[in-house]
Amino acid sequence: MTQLGICKRNIIRADKGAVDRMKRLGSATVHEAMGRVGLMKPYMRPIYPGAQVSGTAITVLLQPGDNWMMHVAAEQIQPGDIVVAAVTADCTDGYFGDLLATSFMARGARALIIDAGCRDVTTLQEMGFPVWSKCISAKGTIKATLGSVNIPIVCAGALVNPGDAIVADDDGIVVVPADWANRVADAGEKRESFEGEKREKFASGVLGLDLYEMRETLAKAGFKYID
Amino acid sequence: MTQLGICKRNIIRADKGAVDRMKRLGSATVHEAMGRVGLMKPYMRPIYPGAQVSGTAITVLLQPGDNWMMHVAAEQIQPGDIVVAAVTADCTDGYFGDLLATSFMARGARALIIDAGCRDVTTLQEMGFPVWSKCISAKGTIKATLGSVNIPIVCAGALVNPGDAIVADDDGIVVVPADWANRVADAGEKRESFEGEKREKFASGVLGLDLYEMRETLAKAGFKYID
Amino acid sequence: MTQLGICKRNIIRADKGAVDRMKRLGSATVHEAMGRVGLMKPYMRPIYPGAQVSGTAITVLLQPGDNWMMHVAAEQIQPGDIVVAAVTADCTDGYFGDLLATSFMARGARALIIDAGCRDVTTLQEMGFPVWSKCISAKGTIKATLGSVNIPIVCAGALVNPGDAIVADDDGIVVVPADWANRVADAGEKRESFEGEKREKFASGVLGLDLYEMRETLAKAGFKYID
Amino acid sequence: MTQLGICKRNIIRADKGAVDRMKRLGSATVHEAMGRVGLMKPYMRPIYPGAQVSGTAITVLLQPGDNWMMHVAAEQIQPGDIVVAAVTADCTDGYFGDLLATSFMARGARALIIDAGCRDVTTLQEMGFPVWSKCISAKGTIKATLGSVNIPIVCAGALVNPGDAIVADDDGIVVVPADWANRVADAGEKRESFEGEKREKFASGVLGLDLYEMRETLAKAGFKYID
Amino acid sequence: MTQLGICKRNIIRADKGAVDRMKRLGSATVHEAMGRVGLMKPYMRPIYPGAQVSGTAITVLLQPGDNWMMHVAAEQIQPGDIVVAAVTADCTDGYFGDLLATSFMARGARALIIDAGCRDVTTLQEMGFPVWSKCISAKGTIKATLGSVNIPIVCAGALVNPGDAIVADDDGIVVVPADWANRVADAGEKRESFEGEKREKFASGVLGLDLYEMRETLAKAGFKYID
Amino acid sequence: MTQLGICKRNIIRADKGAVDRMKRLGSATVHEAMGRVGLMKPYMRPIYPGAQVSGTAITVLLQPGDNWMMHVAAEQIQPGDIVVAAVTADCTDGYFGDLLATSFMARGARALIIDAGCRDVTTLQEMGFPVWSKCISAKGTIKATLGSVNIPIVCAGALVNPGDAIVADDDGIVVVPADWANRVADAGEKRESFEGEKREKFASGVLGLDLYEMRETLAKAGFKYID
Repeated sequence: MTQLGICKRNIIRADKGAVDRMKRLGSATVHEAMGRVGLMKPYMRPIYPGAQVSGTAITVLLQPGDNWMMHVAAEQIQPGDIVVAAVTADCTDGYFGDLLATSFMARGARALIIDAGCRDVTTLQEMGFPVWSKCISAKGTIKATLGSVNIPIVCAGALVNPGDAIVADDDGIVVVPADWANRVADAGEKRESFEGEKREKFASGVLGLDLYEMRETLAKAGFKYID
Repeated sequence: MTQLGICKRNIIRADKGAVDRMKRLGSATVHEAMGRVGLMKPYMRPIYPGAQVSGTAITVLLQPGDNWMMHVAAEQIQPGDIVVAAVTADCTDGYFGDLLATSFMARGARALIIDAGCRDVTTLQEMGFPVWSKCISAKGTIKATLGSVNIPIVCAGALVNPGDAIVADDDGIVVVPADWANRVADAGEKRESFEGEKREKFASGVLGLDLYEMRETLAKAGFKYID
Repeated sequence: MTQLGICKRNIIRADKGAVDRMKRLGSATVHEAMGRVGLMKPYMRPIYPGAQVSGTAITVLLQPGDNWMMHVAAEQIQPGDIVVAAVTADCTDGYFGDLLATSFMARGARALIIDAGCRDVTTLQEMGFPVWSKCISAKGTIKATLGSVNIPIVCAGALVNPGDAIVADDDGIVVVPADWANRVADAGEKRESFEGEKREKFASGVLGLDLYEMRETLAKAGFKYID
Repeated sequence: MTQLGICKRNIIRADKGAVDRMKRLGSATVHEAMGRVGLMKPYMRPIYPGAQVSGTAITVLLQPGDNWMMHVAAEQIQPGDIVVAAVTADCTDGYFGDLLATSFMARGARALIIDAGCRDVTTLQEMGFPVWSKCISAKGTIKATLGSVNIPIVCAGALVNPGDAIVADDDGIVVVPADWANRVADAGEKRESFEGEKREKFASGVLGLDLYEMRETLAKAGFKYID
Repeated sequence: MTQLGICKRNIIRADKGAVDRMKRLGSATVHEAMGRVGLMKPYMRPIYPGAQVSGTAITVLLQPGDNWMMHVAAEQIQPGDIVVAAVTADCTDGYFGDLLATSFMARGARALIIDAGCRDVTTLQEMGFPVWSKCISAKGTIKATLGSVNIPIVCAGALVNPGDAIVADDDGIVVVPADWANRVADAGEKRESFEGEKREKFASGVLGLDLYEMRETLAKAGFKYID
Repeated sequence: MTQLGICKRNIIRADKGAVDRMKRLGSATVHEAMGRVGLMKPYMRPIYPGAQVSGTAITVLLQPGDNWMMHVAAEQIQPGDIVVAAVTADCTDGYFGDLLATSFMARGARALIIDAGCRDVTTLQEMGFPVWSKCISAKGTIKATLGSVNIPIVCAGALVNPGDAIVADDDGIVVVPADWANRVADAGEKRESFEGEKREKFASGVLGLDLYEMRETLAKAGFKYID
């Protein structure tokens, strides 16, 4: 349950090896490997194309128009972390810009995921600090109301616990519970190993209808070809 | 009228020559040449900038969360076709990724237009397979419910019949009825031939007010200049 | 109050020096320097990334589906102006393309801000004419209904008077009242001069908690660290 | 294909008996009876609750901000018709108010379905003239640009041909092709006849798991109960 | 230009007689009488149907998640006023409930127009205090950040000056500049006086085509009837 | 973490006495009493006005276009429960109608909360079975894909565990963790006891500025009155 005004310092992070293996797999494969759960809503978009990251979640619950808790979060960052931020109400303000990004990078953060707005996006791209956000807005924020850091949050429709593994790329953002990380990385790599073979067959002109033996199922379901 | 569970094999495709001429004209000119009809809604966006295609439509009606019919559609693709897919309800799932794209490219497809989500977009850009979609989502789909292939569909607000010409670029997507293709290509080229001259005049500082002789009409309509 | 069917010829433009100084500052800094007002809604997006402009506003009030007034506006453009256009009702049509852009550039316009659609975006990027718009649409417009030019308008939620300074980049669009321009440019530059120092400190690992002396305020507000 | 500037006078209307039988069935049952196609998007809402109508479609294609064609449509109305109106671009204007409603009622119209705005809604409820619309807006329209009457249109995502049967209630709006009307009315009544028996069983506490014999299928699909 | 942290006490209110006459006319007629300007966006909706009010504006600029300024506004209310509130960023919080409504009613306020959320809507309907809002939300607000009272604001896309006349009903909300109130009330009543006659003619079956003599104009514009 | 294909039978329900006390308090007071957390997004709306319920959650995770799990959920319902349903992707289908409602009512359910569509809304109102949903749609669903029952879900942005207390009315929907129920009911009642006194003061014309002693704080924050 959500509680305001606290910061949890000791969190259990997903296994670093598993987290790093998931980066290469990407969000779509990891999402499949988990059984199609844990995906954030597709309105979350990267501020520039081509970024691909994985990391462990520092969670932040913000108040509308107030980014105070981002500074509390900065101190909790360890190398390899990704900050994941939600707001207690819909808000499009630009909570994050190049100064905070400088601070986050200095602490070893790999990215920010925020269910609100971001600004200084041209500079952030030059700095190579990727952000996935709901929107882009030049509007800044104040530092006056308490939220929390490292509590369970709901970000863009997905539950995120501190320490969970995050995989983000141009396709979206997946949240992997910390104690699932190794299992999901294994399942994802297994899944991927089949893909090369399938890709070759498709490239040679084999149809999915034949590769997946769908013709009989289609006929049974009453599917008809007409001329 | 929409019918589920069928695939029409013999469709009459728009004239290939006309279709190819329309690629260079682009969606805005073709839309004008048709009398400003046939445009899909502007929420449809390319997954990467700069693609410009034309082709003949293979239509697909999908069910929410189910891409089974995409495999049926693959077999119907002939070189120069563009697959156009609608869903029977609003759905943001990622119906299409790099494996299906490999299959579609092997069959000669030029693009996919889908009123739903797409995934593997970084890979699709590397492969050079353009997609126009409603959103991007890592969430995959199942293969369990019947839709149809090559029936009339409504995609992003536009009626598409199998075989219709499709013109898509960064400005949007236009649907040209198959038996209008030559007429529209002619009208578009004629329209375009006037544009070079106009562009030169505008570049030299001539105003639209004078070029289009608008000053008198404005005055008649009661338009007033004040200081 | 809005009046239809008029064009005001003599407008008082914001000080050119101040306007040009604000370009470098960018929309986020200028917005802060103004006291966080004057920002357009974040649904307004650039048609290509990386453009950064400032200029003085020529305002246009359009009717839905009708871009007649854009030609009236063209004649009022002086070098350094930015055209800012609103519509009397929600409309997604593509009011502006490469021909009008050629005319606007020939008159010295630096950009277009339009709370509606734009088209020919690939060509506009090649020409280097930046546009911020609500959407992109190939759908053209007619020239039949009177609007107005150089009257106060509301564009994407912000009030714009003719002659106001406009600052636009990837973060958004800010409107600075003409007689505030020098003051805001001064305040923005002062603000920015502090940023370099802050950035260095953040880069060296100093936390915002210490730089902004937040620890005591947090404790007073009842914020707690738990383990 | 859409053509502007025409009105088709002789249209073939769906069978009146079938249309009237479908009113009682309601949109959900008719939609099921048709095989789950032909439904307009759920953003279309009645301007007041409780209306339930069926009728034959007079179709109207409007231009943004212009309701001229509504007057052309009025003349084509016969008792039992429902006017169905689409716009060539997204528009929220109030195209229809109490005067037009008086005219439509005098001609025998049963309702209006419009993919745009409506106004005078308090008066329309008092008059008992139901409207399903995208929004409500006091903003009026002009009468200056040609659209068409009784051509095929796409309204809220559904294709409507003149003469098609329309069924509308609080659940939504279904379009039944004219030559399907009898078949769909038959199928809907058959479907409904089973519902009474089911309702009684459900009311007595029988579970759908047993009534539809789902327990075995669930187990086969791997579904598990845990404690 | 917007300024934060101030409350203007002496405002010039629109003529009370004119304001009261406009209530009966309703938003649609008043909007027409003004030349179709001054309407708020149609996403603003009444929290219960059937309310019809007019009054003079007390304007409030709020910060996201903060309703402090509503209490400052309460003191400025005089009998016959309507409070009109905007927020500096998109926010869906419930800024207003039954306690504030009790205070506003005690001061003589007739309604609230707020471009954000409202709560306690069942109680507000029982109390007979009408509110037009962007949404309904149980989420409350704090009282910590300065906004302003009685400065010009942009509310739901419309410019509102303190003292302006406001007309609101189920069709929407119109803002009439204070010094236009008498002229607009006159124009609206004149307009309305023609409506009764038109309504009778429409009710007797006369068509708009004949009443407005549109047949010739249609023919000239190239409109064609086909069979 | 979300798991598909399971139904948990033994869940710990919030204390019945506490749940019933919260009904009278309503969603806004309960939300305040919890510290302003646990509220669903405001796009969730009741299908008819005036319903006010509380109950314990049976949670359902559905697949797009598939309501199979609703029948599994029916068997788990005990008198006093409220079914809370989420979908694994955005979907507007009508998952729930009068037959399922009959079954749910026979089992003792008090309401349905569903982050998707609902249908048969006229009948549901007649039956007195309240539903809060994202939209209304006549489109039905199939029964083919596994989801889960009584696992933690995210519904309209809020985390819901099976057995949690749910409070819903015209203002929105609040989720109270099962083991917080007594504490929140106590806090809510205490909070409410102060409201009567405040309401009387406001009704007598006392201002919030004085009641909450805001005048000094305003002055300290730099707030100024001007004439």
